Amino acid sequence: MLDTPDQIKELSLEQLKILSEEIRQEMINVVSENGGHLASNLGVVELTIALHRVLTIPEDKIIWDVGHQTYIHKLLTSRREEFKTLRQHKGLSGFPKRSESSCDCFDTGHSSTSISAAVGYAKARDIQNEKYRVVAVIGDGAMSGGMAFEALNHAGNCKTNLIVVLNDNDMFISQNVGAMSSYLNRIRTAPAYDRKKEDIQKFLKNIPKIGNAVAKAAEKAKDGIKYMLVPGMLFEELGLTYLGPVDGHDIASLEKVLTQAKKKKGPVLVHVLTCKGKGYEPARQNPDIFHGIGPFNKENGELKKKSDIPTYTQVFGKTVCELADKDEKIVAVTAAMGSGTGLSHFGKLFPKRYFDVGIAEQHAVTFAAALAFGGLKPIVSMYSTFYQRAYDQVIHDVCLQKAKVIFAVDRAGIVGEDGPTHHGVFDLSFLRAIPNLTIMAPKDEQELRDMFYTALSFDNPVAIRYPRASGVGVPIKKEFSLIEKGKAELLLKGEDLTIIGFGHVVNMCLEAAYKLRMMGINAGVVNLRFINPLDKELIIEQGKLTGKILTVEDHILNGGMGSAVLELLHDENLGEVRVGRIGYRGYVEHGPIPLLHKEHGISMENIIVRATALVHEQEAENQTHIVKEHIH
Amino acid sequence: MLDTPDQIKELSLEQLKILSEEIRQEMINVVSENGGHLASNLGVVELTIALHRVLTIPEDKIIWDVGHQTYIHKLLTSRREEFKTLRQHKGLSGFPKRSESSCDCFDTGHSSTSISAAVGYAKARDIQNEKYRVVAVIGDGAMSGGMAFEALNHAGNCKTNLIVVLNDNDMFISQNVGAMSSYLNRIRTAPAYDRKKEDIQKFLKNIPKIGNAVAKAAEKAKDGIKYMLVPGMLFEELGLTYLGPVDGHDIASLEKVLTQAKKKKGPVLVHVLTCKGKGYEPARQNPDIFHGIGPFNKENGELKKKSDIPTYTQVFGKTVCELADKDEKIVAVTAAMGSGTGLSHFGKLFPKRYFDVGIAEQHAVTFAAALAFGGLKPIVSMYSTFYQRAYDQVIHDVCLQKAKVIFAVDRAGIVGEDGPTHHGVFDLSFLRAIPNLTIMAPKDEQELRDMFYTALSFDNPVAIRYPRASGVGVPIKKEFSLIEKGKAELLLKGEDLTIIGFGHVVNMCLEAAYKLRMMGINAGVVNLRFINPLDKELIIEQGKLTGKILTVEDHILNGGMGSAVLELLHDENLGEVRVGRIGYRGYVEHGPIPLLHKEHGISMENIIVRATALVHEQEAENQTHIVKEHIH
Repeated sequence: MLDTPDQIKELSLEQLKILSEEIRQEMINVVSENGGHLASNLGVVELTIALHRVLTIPEDKIIWDVGHQTYIHKLLTSRREEFKTLRQHKGLSGFPKRSESSCDCFDTGHSSTSISAAVGYAKARDIQNEKYRVVAVIGDGAMSGGMAFEALNHAGNCKTNLIVVLNDNDMFISQNVGAMSSYLNRIRTAPAYDRKKEDIQKFLKNIPKIGNAVAKAAEKAKDGIKYMLVPGMLFEELGLTYLGPVDGHDIASLEKVLTQAKKKKGPVLVHVLTCKGKGYEPARQNPDIFHGIGPFNKENGELKKKSDIPTYTQVFGKTVCELADKDEKIVAVTAAMGSGTGLSHFGKLFPKRYFDVGIAEQHAVTFAAALAFGGLKPIVSMYSTFYQRAYDQVIHDVCLQKAKVIFAVDRAGIVGEDGPTHHGVFDLSFLRAIPNLTIMAPKDEQELRDMFYTALSFDNPVAIRYPRASGVGVPIKKEFSLIEKGKAELLLKGEDLTIIGFGHVVNMCLEAAYKLRMMGINAGVVNLRFINPLDKELIIEQGKLTGKILTVEDHILNGGMGSAVLELLHDENLGEVRVGRIGYRGYVEHGPIPLLHKEHGISMENIIVRATALVHEQEAENQTHIVKEHIH
Repeated sequence: MLDTPDQIKELSLEQLKILSEEIRQEMINVVSENGGHLASNLGVVELTIALHRVLTIPEDKIIWDVGHQTYIHKLLTSRREEFKTLRQHKGLSGFPKRSESSCDCFDTGHSSTSISAAVGYAKARDIQNEKYRVVAVIGDGAMSGGMAFEALNHAGNCKTNLIVVLNDNDMFISQNVGAMSSYLNRIRTAPAYDRKKEDIQKFLKNIPKIGNAVAKAAEKAKDGIKYMLVPGMLFEELGLTYLGPVDGHDIASLEKVLTQAKKKKGPVLVHVLTCKGKGYEPARQNPDIFHGIGPFNKENGELKKKSDIPTYTQVFGKTVCELADKDEKIVAVTAAMGSGTGLSHFGKLFPKRYFDVGIAEQHAVTFAAALAFGGLKPIVSMYSTFYQRAYDQVIHDVCLQKAKVIFAVDRAGIVGEDGPTHHGVFDLSFLRAIPNLTIMAPKDEQELRDMFYTALSFDNPVAIRYPRASGVGVPIKKEFSLIEKGKAELLLKGEDLTIIGFGHVVNMCLEAAYKLRMMGINAGVVNLRFINPLDKELIIEQGKLTGKILTVEDHILNGGMGSAVLELLHDENLGEVRVGRIGYRGYVEHGPIPLLHKEHGISMENIIVRATALVHEQEAENQTHIVKEHIH
């Protein structure tokens, strides 16, 4: 392989083939060890090589939409040595990172941002009379995200030079949905689209020679016909020059079309057809599984380890099916996270009541609000980090109107190797600000079941957050039980201190409490269960009883659960209760979840340390008090 | 006018003309008194009448995008009597409201939600085997919003029966931007588009008869040609049947095309051409001014009252021009809020450095991040409520990468008559959760200037929030001064209590403090200036000094500024400081800002009440303490 980005320009086509093979092998080797996004990277080996041959990096800018397909880019930009640390703690990120290399010009992670970033770079270049090229590489799935359209709408109008490479693999994260996708499929398959633009121009030129009425009519609509016979007319209508489709695994063709694109004035869209998983049979056959995968056996593509305990996501998927089986009003909505959120089976059992709307979180939420007003019981399931994309819709379309929508907030808390773009550590802050919205978090997978069952009985919108993790392994009851609204659960009664946990962290709170008891500190534990409403009664009672509260959340501290507890205490004139809060204090890097939890203090050990400090400080003060009284 | 929605079906065309005239007069009368959205309503009189004749309300559902164009709908659905209370406190809302009438099936306010809601209703209907019609009425401007595209992408694919009425007035809130808009303009003006669909079908049928090669080639591309010659091909490609364009002021034509649309299977887009301000010359000539307007003289269209004190928005607009004049790296970005955010003049002075990207908040923010990395200094200016639309982009594209973007958060706090959809009362909660983001709020218009000047010197993203209001009337200094990062301003030193205000409320805090002094309570006042970072030193010092803090914010309490102060106090082991918080406790209704402030306790009077209670409670407790000591 290569040491610097420009070496690639000196290689022959034959050498490039060898390089492609080496790259594929290296990626399979590393991802089979570290896990990662394999299928998408295997699909863009030739495309990335062609881009690097046609462009000059880092002067020219490539913005990689979503960014999980940048492994080849990393290998080609002096990160070959570190590549084995991919997605490991303190190692290379699985996404582009400005902080990692000057060849990464824009951090990505979430979908559909690349064209916006490309227009920004292009306009900055124009204003400052600079000359570099700007390229956005975006998948057909990401193209369904609204902000990609917003950016195309701007790009098509402002006439700046930029290239959008549409990486069309006819299959995004889970399945192919939406009208745009059907449209691209028509381009791919229509025989008329095989012809070259030049032929069409010639054809049009010939029309006027036929001296009859039909030809005259045709002449009148010539401009229209011209647009039409050129594939990609939808993009042409939006002001972009369309080139393609081109075989995304043929480096020579790719170079040709990209060179052509470089010469055009204004925004150009290059339509590239690729095959996810290309070159590694298990990935090609199961691009869904090999989209984001854990460590696997590279001989046969089998996943290495599997916990026997079902994940929260799996229990959610099963629970929704059970509930929907009994109540035909229940429908499920997701945004290209069908298998990720555990809804695939629901989709198979109830195809008419299952909506995967594509990468379109905003639409998903407002769509669900109307489903509710139309008489159904929608459950929207998305990752915590993607609710950030639909925040206004949650406020404006669901909660303001009190639409009875249940939000399953999956991947709440840190998510591990995908890192800061994907950690779900803001949802409590942004959701608890919203009136009418009840927020819940289960301490284990059994409680998760009861929470969804319970949420259906409320007359207001509800959000239920749970982590990307295996459950606790508790037995699953067949029957569902209602949980009283706003009621927390006092798991352990203590006198020295009350530890309040929200969600899965309740389990480490319990563990810590038992250890603290052995150390002579009588700690109580509350499973908070609800924010909006909080269990005022229990918190007040505990505050008065122990005078010390330690809150624990898998979430950022600013405005989080602990903050809600503080607000309550002061509203109730109980500010003198000493409160410690455990949670994150900034963006969290990538790495294994247990390690990150430990590093950031979301751990039994840290709970013990903080609890001890809280209790002893107070004691120290009491002592001072006693001393003072003696003096007095 | 009419008493029930169905009466309209019995009227003759002549009677409908009279009704249209009556409606226009009534709207001009009421809006000239109460203020409101006049131009857009004048533009859809005939369209609304035609919809009500073709549909059966409330069985059929009309979802009005943005919703400020629903005055006629309200007049036609038994709200004629209350119409004079339009936008007044406790009166009719200026937007559709489910709580107001069963004829309003979906609340709107923000743009581009209607197609999502329509697809939701349509699918709910299909699943439950119901039969009603679903219509979304959306402007050409709203069509540029990403979520409208997300919804079209879904609608075009799921083949359900619904009608999208594209109300194309060639001019949205401020100006016509974007490729979609150019596209619609081409449809409007192209002569080829005059032909009827039937003619085109005939033309296509004739082609095979010509026995030559050209015809054969044409035949091959027949399907393509068919699509092309039909206007609205972009929508057809997305799976919708396109009908139009039709004159939006011709009731008979509108009825005809809507009836045709009702008969079609699957999603239909009806392209209606309307003229904003139709029937009232001042509004027709200045649709921008008459978009959302205050009370005016209906004889000549002149605005009734005007404060001499410039608004925060105006001062912002002027400040940015001054700063940009000195620094050519400064660029401004907005999302169809150019005149609303005071940037119009900037756009005239620096056209190449001004970007109005249309209704596309998500794109605006990510675009700005790349402008910053490209070497410029972008200032994004949008209303607080619309940052909700770009929340993920602020987290993921700006703050995570520490892009040096300055966010002007206009209309922060309640906005008055536009009501709950538009109040900017969540920004502190959702923004202060984000690491790397400095948040500021000026106490007056002079400080606003210095804050923008100061923000340019920071090496991290900054948000500056300010209200929809006239400034305080302080003198404006020509020179700018730097404000030290994270430094609050102690305006009044007090010993009994510290009142902390953030933003314009600081002025009522000061007033209250002076009155409190007359009542024997020595209150201090802090102009907080910064959240992230908070002025730890000053807050601790004040907490220790007075032991009582009252926070005041024009914002919801959950997770707001007061909450940040609580977090700081407890992190510093100063929980015993008694803290009262003033702010909103839920959604706020519509009405005049001063009245709403008063009703919700954002007032000098309430500050005095709360401050007094805080101080006396503490005293009462001290007394108890003394009593206890005596007993002891």
